[in-house]
Amino acid sequence: MDAWQNLTARVAELDALAGASATLDWDQQTYMPPKAADTRGTQTALLQRLYHERFTAPEFGDWLSELESRELDGTQRAAVRLHRRRYDRAVKLPSSLVSALSIARTEGFHAWAAAKEADDFNRFAPKLQRILDLTREQAAALGEGAAHPYDALLEDYDPGSTVADLRPMFDRLGVEIGKFLGAIEGRPHPEPLGLRLDVEGQARLSQRVVRDLGFDMEGGRLDRSAHPFTTGLGVGDVRLTTRYFEDDVLSGLGSTIHEAGHGMYEQGLPANLAGTGLNQAAGMGLHESQSRFWENFVGRSLPWFRYLAPRLGAIWPEREFSPERLYAAANRVQRTLVRVEADEATYNLHIIVRFGLELATLEGQLQAVDLPAAWDEAYRRVVGVVAPSARLGVLQDVHWSSGLFGYFPSYTIGNLYAASFAQKMLADIPAFWSLVERGDFAPILGWLRTHVHEKGSRSDAVDIFREVAGNRDPVEDLVSHLWSRHGALYGVSRS
Amino acid sequence: MDAWQNLTARVAELDALAGASATLDWDQQTYMPPKAADTRGTQTALLQRLYHERFTAPEFGDWLSELESRELDGTQRAAVRLHRRRYDRAVKLPSSLVSALSIARTEGFHAWAAAKEADDFNRFAPKLQRILDLTREQAAALGEGAAHPYDALLEDYDPGSTVADLRPMFDRLGVEIGKFLGAIEGRPHPEPLGLRLDVEGQARLSQRVVRDLGFDMEGGRLDRSAHPFTTGLGVGDVRLTTRYFEDDVLSGLGSTIHEAGHGMYEQGLPANLAGTGLNQAAGMGLHESQSRFWENFVGRSLPWFRYLAPRLGAIWPEREFSPERLYAAANRVQRTLVRVEADEATYNLHIIVRFGLELATLEGQLQAVDLPAAWDEAYRRVVGVVAPSARLGVLQDVHWSSGLFGYFPSYTIGNLYAASFAQKMLADIPAFWSLVERGDFAPILGWLRTHVHEKGSRSDAVDIFREVAGNRDPVEDLVSHLWSRHGALYGVSRS
Repeated sequence: MDAWQNLTARVAELDALAGASATLDWDQQTYMPPKAADTRGTQTALLQRLYHERFTAPEFGDWLSELESRELDGTQRAAVRLHRRRYDRAVKLPSSLVSALSIARTEGFHAWAAAKEADDFNRFAPKLQRILDLTREQAAALGEGAAHPYDALLEDYDPGSTVADLRPMFDRLGVEIGKFLGAIEGRPHPEPLGLRLDVEGQARLSQRVVRDLGFDMEGGRLDRSAHPFTTGLGVGDVRLTTRYFEDDVLSGLGSTIHEAGHGMYEQGLPANLAGTGLNQAAGMGLHESQSRFWENFVGRSLPWFRYLAPRLGAIWPEREFSPERLYAAANRVQRTLVRVEADEATYNLHIIVRFGLELATLEGQLQAVDLPAAWDEAYRRVVGVVAPSARLGVLQDVHWSSGLFGYFPSYTIGNLYAASFAQKMLADIPAFWSLVERGDFAPILGWLRTHVHEKGSRSDAVDIFREVAGNRDPVEDLVSHLWSRHGALYGVSRS
Repeated sequence: MDAWQNLTARVAELDALAGASATLDWDQQTYMPPKAADTRGTQTALLQRLYHERFTAPEFGDWLSELESRELDGTQRAAVRLHRRRYDRAVKLPSSLVSALSIARTEGFHAWAAAKEADDFNRFAPKLQRILDLTREQAAALGEGAAHPYDALLEDYDPGSTVADLRPMFDRLGVEIGKFLGAIEGRPHPEPLGLRLDVEGQARLSQRVVRDLGFDMEGGRLDRSAHPFTTGLGVGDVRLTTRYFEDDVLSGLGSTIHEAGHGMYEQGLPANLAGTGLNQAAGMGLHESQSRFWENFVGRSLPWFRYLAPRLGAIWPEREFSPERLYAAANRVQRTLVRVEADEATYNLHIIVRFGLELATLEGQLQAVDLPAAWDEAYRRVVGVVAPSARLGVLQDVHWSSGLFGYFPSYTIGNLYAASFAQKMLADIPAFWSLVERGDFAPILGWLRTHVHEKGSRSDAVDIFREVAGNRDPVEDLVSHLWSRHGALYGVSRS
């Protein structure tokens, strides 16, 4: 076998191990009985170790070196580039650091859960400090020559993104959203829905909606879990989960549409590139652009609720559903404390706060014990609210406890990319909103397939974005969308 | 690390790999979307290869040799004995034969499914012949010095069982069941139930029954699948599946009780011996004794239906359920064609037929093309019926297509063991039947825990059976149970 055959055979093996791991994880979050927790932990740790051993084996580096010295076709070149970056990162980290991080994350997660339960940041602080120290070490080990230590962390989630690119965009976005919030300040809010609907009916609705959107149920599923997520277990197997609240149909439905957006991206990745590693998402931000596009741009629009109202009526025939009321209720904009409950506009402020705090910790300006005060100060300044307790403040998210520094920006990168994709699509598909209203989503999904999904990870996400959006300004696209959607509802217009 | 630590660390790793594989398999049979079939095949094959490599590695043999030369405690001695047998078997098979068998089984399964669908044995014959040839090769490679080549195959399912032991027992059992069937010949059969009950209600009933029996739902689950099965994914994680038919509540319930019996055995295995390999079932026959004991001895008794009738009434309050009618319907004895639909008595005749045919093929007296005629002849002689088509005859079971020669006897071994356990238990627990009627199954399960489950695989199943049953005759115990249960229903008594 030559180096290319060896490489692709190994990558196929790694994909199979990753898919097996992902299956165990999906099961753990959906159906696994509680007493299986320790057993499952052992199984997952073993599969991850086997993955790591096979990925970082010296022969993998040898195959890459041999291929780099050869004439390659375009696919081979893209694959070698991708694996070289990952391989170098993986072998750069001393195994002592990898295992220290793994222990710190496990302990951090448990300490965070207990601290949140007790509403007491101090219980989390020492473990968080340990994670911070190790994360800085990790960034130093990986980020040789990088302009900012945070860049090395971003590489894990959004290869190609840098602080130098993101900071000015996030700063502008914060200022513009601030202007918009100032304009609606004191205006009457749309009415909340105030509707109780049984969760069995909501589950049927979600199954229907996911199919209508174009998620292939022969190659995937939708189940329930405490925290909604999407996971690709391999070609032909994409699992979505969601959750339902009896008093908030829009919340569960929003989660469902969001995860379906992720899932349709996974299903649209180029299966013919299996074994090259290129049949994977190009980054978390691009992934998030797919979920946000469907959840927000489509899923909070008036045409969407015109599509949805008769489907609601079919499940609850004794109720009346007005598209206009649903639309208004789905677009209340408020300064609130909790990221995962935030509206389409203020959501990004939550990310801007976290991005700033993560930069400051990586730069060494903040230690774990400084975070609660820094959090409250940033929330006061950026979001305009202060949490009455750590639980609703600095302890609200799991990410830091699991060592996921560098992950948060993906959410707003997703919103930005989605905004420009949407504008481009409106130009390419003039009938866009009437298609949504009719529930004919195939042309829209088709556009995403061609322009995003089928590219896999042949290029970095930023380059895929530029190929599609040309020189569009995603900050401007997002801000103008927010003004135009909420303008009529709040009776304001951009000056 | 010394040899014992190395051995147990490796066994723990093997258990984790086996548990991961079993999770993938469970998922495949319950929730996996259809398009994932190829992906899942690749994942499972990889995990099995990793298992095999790690189990048959030379160091595993070295650790065993070192331990065999040492002073060991009882647990260590039992573990070394168990792994030595398995290891020697595994390394005795040339890897070319292992992979040829694996291919032949995959192809055999597909050919069998197509042949059954088309009701045409010829489509299956060449693949079955290939499996037969390789199985004979396997038996020859493993069975050096064995009294019968079939003994080497039995070892995979019922370590310690031999043709010399089984043949006379099965022969006697066949004769005795024949006498019993002769006695009820021409007597009026109890009425069938003729009841339609919605499957959602049946599913609730099964969940209730499984909990009542003592299956721990914190460490397990009950789901639905096309073919009921039980699988242990590791400590604290035992999964049962069952199926329901609207027009046959007793069939689905029987499957549920049967699988719960398997599942309670798995849950009762000694978790403190994890890592030694001794926390596993001592054999398929013993496993089957647990499912058959609950399904038949308990689950077809009149006291059981007295327990059950009010639970049925709670789910379908508009219906009336008579314990006597349920009991009678559950105990109709008929000469029929299909093993999995057979009653408690004739079931064993189906096994006796297969046992005879398997012995003849292993002895070289029968080739694949001879099996349809030999099957019909044996059914006419042993069961008293002849299949109108291959689908209801020689093609009815999946086992041979998957190379599972040696497996069938386990079912009747299970019935035999269960019969003697039951008689022993009646002596030890005089209130047995009133406990069943009250739904107080804990003392019964407790007896099985102590006498069977907690022994794990410290001894061979036959030795565990003898420890418990002393010099009881399981054939006599089973036959006298059949007469006593059906005597009153059919108005006959043993002469």
